Amino acid sequence: MIVRPPQHWFRRLFVWHGSVLPNILFRLSLNFIVSCLAVLCYHWHEDFNVNLTLGPFSLLGVAIAIFLGFRNNASYARFIEARVLWGSLLITTRSLMRQAISLMPHPGGEHRRFAMLLTAFTYALKHHLRHEPMAMELTRLLPAQDKAAVLTSYSPCNRLLQLMGQWLGEQRRRGYLSDIDFQTIDTNLNQLSVILGGCERISNTPIPFAYSLIVHRTVYVFCALLPFALVTDLHYMTPLVSVFISYTFIALDALAEELEDPFGTEANDLPLNAMAHTVESNLRDMINDHTHLARVCPDSHCRLD
Amino acid sequence: MIVRPPQHWFRRLFVWHGSVLPNILFRLSLNFIVSCLAVLCYHWHEDFNVNLTLGPFSLLGVAIAIFLGFRNNASYARFIEARVLWGSLLITTRSLMRQAISLMPHPGGEHRRFAMLLTAFTYALKHHLRHEPMAMELTRLLPAQDKAAVLTSYSPCNRLLQLMGQWLGEQRRRGYLSDIDFQTIDTNLNQLSVILGGCERISNTPIPFAYSLIVHRTVYVFCALLPFALVTDLHYMTPLVSVFISYTFIALDALAEELEDPFGTEANDLPLNAMAHTVESNLRDMINDHTHLARVCPDSHCRLD
Amino acid sequence: MIVRPPQHWFRRLFVWHGSVLPNILFRLSLNFIVSCLAVLCYHWHEDFNVNLTLGPFSLLGVAIAIFLGFRNNASYARFIEARVLWGSLLITTRSLMRQAISLMPHPGGEHRRFAMLLTAFTYALKHHLRHEPMAMELTRLLPAQDKAAVLTSYSPCNRLLQLMGQWLGEQRRRGYLSDIDFQTIDTNLNQLSVILGGCERISNTPIPFAYSLIVHRTVYVFCALLPFALVTDLHYMTPLVSVFISYTFIALDALAEELEDPFGTEANDLPLNAMAHTVESNLRDMINDHTHLARVCPDSHCRLD
Amino acid sequence: MIVRPPQHWFRRLFVWHGSVLPNILFRLSLNFIVSCLAVLCYHWHEDFNVNLTLGPFSLLGVAIAIFLGFRNNASYARFIEARVLWGSLLITTRSLMRQAISLMPHPGGEHRRFAMLLTAFTYALKHHLRHEPMAMELTRLLPAQDKAAVLTSYSPCNRLLQLMGQWLGEQRRRGYLSDIDFQTIDTNLNQLSVILGGCERISNTPIPFAYSLIVHRTVYVFCALLPFALVTDLHYMTPLVSVFISYTFIALDALAEELEDPFGTEANDLPLNAMAHTVESNLRDMINDHTHLARVCPDSHCRLD
Amino acid sequence: MIVRPPQHWFRRLFVWHGSVLPNILFRLSLNFIVSCLAVLCYHWHEDFNVNLTLGPFSLLGVAIAIFLGFRNNASYARFIEARVLWGSLLITTRSLMRQAISLMPHPGGEHRRFAMLLTAFTYALKHHLRHEPMAMELTRLLPAQDKAAVLTSYSPCNRLLQLMGQWLGEQRRRGYLSDIDFQTIDTNLNQLSVILGGCERISNTPIPFAYSLIVHRTVYVFCALLPFALVTDLHYMTPLVSVFISYTFIALDALAEELEDPFGTEANDLPLNAMAHTVESNLRDMINDHTHLARVCPDSHCRLD
Repeated sequence: MIVRPPQHWFRRLFVWHGSVLPNILFRLSLNFIVSCLAVLCYHWHEDFNVNLTLGPFSLLGVAIAIFLGFRNNASYARFIEARVLWGSLLITTRSLMRQAISLMPHPGGEHRRFAMLLTAFTYALKHHLRHEPMAMELTRLLPAQDKAAVLTSYSPCNRLLQLMGQWLGEQRRRGYLSDIDFQTIDTNLNQLSVILGGCERISNTPIPFAYSLIVHRTVYVFCALLPFALVTDLHYMTPLVSVFISYTFIALDALAEELEDPFGTEANDLPLNAMAHTVESNLRDMINDHTHLARVCPDSHCRLD
Repeated sequence: MIVRPPQHWFRRLFVWHGSVLPNILFRLSLNFIVSCLAVLCYHWHEDFNVNLTLGPFSLLGVAIAIFLGFRNNASYARFIEARVLWGSLLITTRSLMRQAISLMPHPGGEHRRFAMLLTAFTYALKHHLRHEPMAMELTRLLPAQDKAAVLTSYSPCNRLLQLMGQWLGEQRRRGYLSDIDFQTIDTNLNQLSVILGGCERISNTPIPFAYSLIVHRTVYVFCALLPFALVTDLHYMTPLVSVFISYTFIALDALAEELEDPFGTEANDLPLNAMAHTVESNLRDMINDHTHLARVCPDSHCRLD
Repeated sequence: MIVRPPQHWFRRLFVWHGSVLPNILFRLSLNFIVSCLAVLCYHWHEDFNVNLTLGPFSLLGVAIAIFLGFRNNASYARFIEARVLWGSLLITTRSLMRQAISLMPHPGGEHRRFAMLLTAFTYALKHHLRHEPMAMELTRLLPAQDKAAVLTSYSPCNRLLQLMGQWLGEQRRRGYLSDIDFQTIDTNLNQLSVILGGCERISNTPIPFAYSLIVHRTVYVFCALLPFALVTDLHYMTPLVSVFISYTFIALDALAEELEDPFGTEANDLPLNAMAHTVESNLRDMINDHTHLARVCPDSHCRLD
Repeated sequence: MIVRPPQHWFRRLFVWHGSVLPNILFRLSLNFIVSCLAVLCYHWHEDFNVNLTLGPFSLLGVAIAIFLGFRNNASYARFIEARVLWGSLLITTRSLMRQAISLMPHPGGEHRRFAMLLTAFTYALKHHLRHEPMAMELTRLLPAQDKAAVLTSYSPCNRLLQLMGQWLGEQRRRGYLSDIDFQTIDTNLNQLSVILGGCERISNTPIPFAYSLIVHRTVYVFCALLPFALVTDLHYMTPLVSVFISYTFIALDALAEELEDPFGTEANDLPLNAMAHTVESNLRDMINDHTHLARVCPDSHCRLD
Repeated sequence: MIVRPPQHWFRRLFVWHGSVLPNILFRLSLNFIVSCLAVLCYHWHEDFNVNLTLGPFSLLGVAIAIFLGFRNNASYARFIEARVLWGSLLITTRSLMRQAISLMPHPGGEHRRFAMLLTAFTYALKHHLRHEPMAMELTRLLPAQDKAAVLTSYSPCNRLLQLMGQWLGEQRRRGYLSDIDFQTIDTNLNQLSVILGGCERISNTPIPFAYSLIVHRTVYVFCALLPFALVTDLHYMTPLVSVFISYTFIALDALAEELEDPFGTEANDLPLNAMAHTVESNLRDMINDHTHLARVCPDSHCRLD
């Protein structure tokens, strides 16, 4: 079902990509209109003895290069860090499950309970980051008592970690796990805590708003003034060139804004649904539970499977 | 209570953001006045056979791009590192509490004592970084004897870590914890020590002052001379364009200065109050202490909860 | 058999390198044709009162510098991370084998079994990343029962890790390994889990497609318009200079695209065959199995041995 | 005693900062003289039909931006890494002391001996990095036998680490520490070894000298030729603008050179005295030794306390 | 014996540095000849109605800035990583020796055997990376049996690690080391495995050759065309300015190429001889073996001691 973007260089020039271009189409039309005005008013502003050359724009270009380049890097770094944290979630849940199975080969239904706690943690984290209610998923995965404890907690994900820790302590007291075994598994619980804290940090602390503001203003004033500087040389070609240059700058500004908050549900955000689904499938596979999970379709440009 | 900044691109152009613009408004007015002077004196400095073109400014632009870009990255890196350290504080205190609960399920009031020591460490770190007195918070959280030991110490936060270590050693001697359990928990105490040392490093070692000085001078001389170069082409439009270009450079300089010391109390600094509050709420929740903590309002552009 | 590229600076100018130039030759010819058209039509577009100077191109240059530089760095970072992960695979399998041999000096054929599981993991990872069938290699390395378990699993590589964990748990229950020894080895199994997760992340999450799209369009429109700006000054020399400038930009765009997906089978991708071969050779050498493995020839510019 | 630099933007423009400006004042005067010559000879070099425009300088600007930017980043990275290593030294010595106190609550004077070894390691590292004799400090802190062993060693700091390891092994043999406790503490001794090796690396391996050489030459030839390019447009203003532009480039070159070797005793180097003093104060505080240490004054722009 | 480069800024301008300049002198002379041709043919190419201005060169400058900056960073990162790995080798061998001495205070000649294995590993790594025969050094350090096992192995360095692991396992079976002690030391053996794998990776995987190729071509064509663009303005000064600009670009290209392979024996490569010597001296010092090792002289610009 995944529609791969075209690989051929020529078809890529004209592909209609659903994420950035539609959002900024209106702004580009504004730029087109301003450009047309600039062409029409060309003779007038010569009378005012004002020659808006490209010189000041190259100075603005320096500022924009610093700002836009910085913000783009900062946004992409947030996106990548968020992806790495969710990749680490898959890694750590698999490792925890592997350790539980290796160390306690036959403890009745305990494997299943641990797998369900890990799965619940994954879904709870997803819903927490997207500010959605998580009761439904928890009902599916947890016994009523745990579910209540989680939902009434100040921090549901952390409460799930605490439940895992208590389950682990219980196995130790029953003699299923030695001190060392507890430590071996607990190291990976710490890792889950790191993942939780990292996702919360990205979600709660945006890039300082002043950056976005200054970048935004610089880019838009730059694009609004550009036609008046281009018109002297380009004349009737001004709208075309102006819209194209504006496209590159505004698209980068808009894209960086989308990537800044990678846990949302916009086009370029992380496919948390598919990733949580992968975690559950892996864990179920490891305890030989072949329940058929409905396949989740990530958006068309994510290849995660 | 949190006022989210406007998401729409158009409203963002005119939003009045409380952090950077007001601080630099006076400097921008100076630039405006100089620009007006440049327009008035235009005919005079032609007589001196001096043509200040934009050429030298593009060379200065190279220097400014290196300097300002570098300083901006360095300041932002400090801001992010400080945020990561405080995020790590939340992660580590939760992990420590989870381990204590898993390993020692029923040791009387010991959980509460450990939770209070962790909370006291968090508040002590906050006050230490902001050079504020910490006695009040400590009175609320610690018994009198501990409080005295902490306040008379050379390094209060480190003394709190030492108290945690001694508490841990005591539990071990009582037989509540094995050697391995001690090691499991002590690894996270080391992590707290790393957080403390990292925050002290950021707080005590600014970016070498010579950088700020050179950036500062380059930017201000650049902005002061700019109108004289723009006036030849732009004439009456000079003040507008000059103030706008100066805005981008001066705003970046001012913002980088704010972010450089992320533990202060300016607009773009870290919301330490809210973050310490989060730590306390999490720890209290984990020991099922549902004391109602007054909700701390972070400043309007922080979404931390 | 490895043909080293020429080291001498002069011969490098004219070497025919099999990876990038052939792919973009057609696009460069298009640029050549457009350039010739620009020379021919030179007198016409003067009549339209349109002077396409190099000014707007230097503004586009700023945008391209940000985009192309960013995308190049991001692609190279993916390539390097993938290489580090595979280097780490060699490191970790060697460490695991060393630990197994040191801790269990004479447990019959168990060393061989562990070595085969590690080798199978390596080949399974290779085939998984390249979306190839892995049955043949597994038949060569694993007993039928394990092979079936792996091939029917949701995630074959992870199932192999689980088999290693179960093998380890078995050795512990038999008394060959203590708790501590299990922990010592399990830490490296976690590392294999990290490698698996990291490779899956790189393979499943491309750089957001919008980046490629914007870079691509900017570069191609830039190159298509370039001849019309150069023709005023360069006249008959236009095609030469235009094709050369286009070569640098298009080649960088094409190279970044190749490196973005480092697990493929294009010219600049990682030599996974040779690297898997190295892992197998090392492991066989460590258990003194001198089976002669057919030497794998990596492509001509990889020096891996 | 610490004189803080002025915070106000206006006073910063004229502050006399003791580190960079004085060092380069002579070079700037040379530039001033060359500029005056350029003004005087203006009419002559017109006769030679040579017009040194700003064009070639913008190409040099590209080279300088790459070089100077790179070298500045590399130097700053060395400075920061050195600072992090010394921060880590404080963190690790505190952690080691905490562990020793928690694990061995009443072993006579052993705490003091360990604290003195840690302090001696800190001072020995400082003197080693600054190539100063360390005998005096060691006499103050160590018994005669240890001192002799350290001073006659090939690597005094490493010998101190070895002494700590032997002290630790002794405690284990006496039964004060279990195997696990030894491991817990030994992990931090490894960390001290990492700090030692990291500082030696920074101190022994400068940035490849060829970089400094090329940057240096490019910057100085650039500044020497600059007046001849500016004089056509700026005439009598040439010296002013030329000296200002040269100031930014030469100051960055000089500052990067200072930061490159962060363990020296120049203005922008690390305040090793104050940092070693902090380590000693912390350790003494932890063993409740309230010997009054003379307060060390760091240089005026370091806020470390 | 180490000749330090001059520190004074003026003497640095004219120092004859043995690494980069001699290698590129021939290419710069070619550029000089082309420049002279450009001056001579000046009147001719005016007749062809071709004006090669500096405009297209500033566009090429953007491409070169991206390419050359990227390649320079990538090469330097390889150099630094290689240096860090060898620094880590010194750190880890010292830590391993310290642990062996602390944990097994009097086991006869075992310390010496372990020190020799570590030293042999260091030299074997050096010879492996430089593709030199290692038999002579191994004869000096290892008993005949071990030497044979190492030399006939597929991967000699890894076989040495395996021998260390087996030695460690033997000590454990003899009762000199507990499980925990084994784990404590084995962690550092893993670190040696990481160092070995890291060095092999740097040595075996160059920067994709296509990068070098494109950078190389862009730089050389740029430098070859440059005189024709400069001659219009600079006339007789063309050769001077052209050679200077070419010097900066070609020197950076040549330097990046040298640093790319840091394990070679060129001027700016790592002083592996001196570093291996340092490891041996440290290890011998730790076991109180005061054999006088001949001092190795690193090349004149390395300060490693």
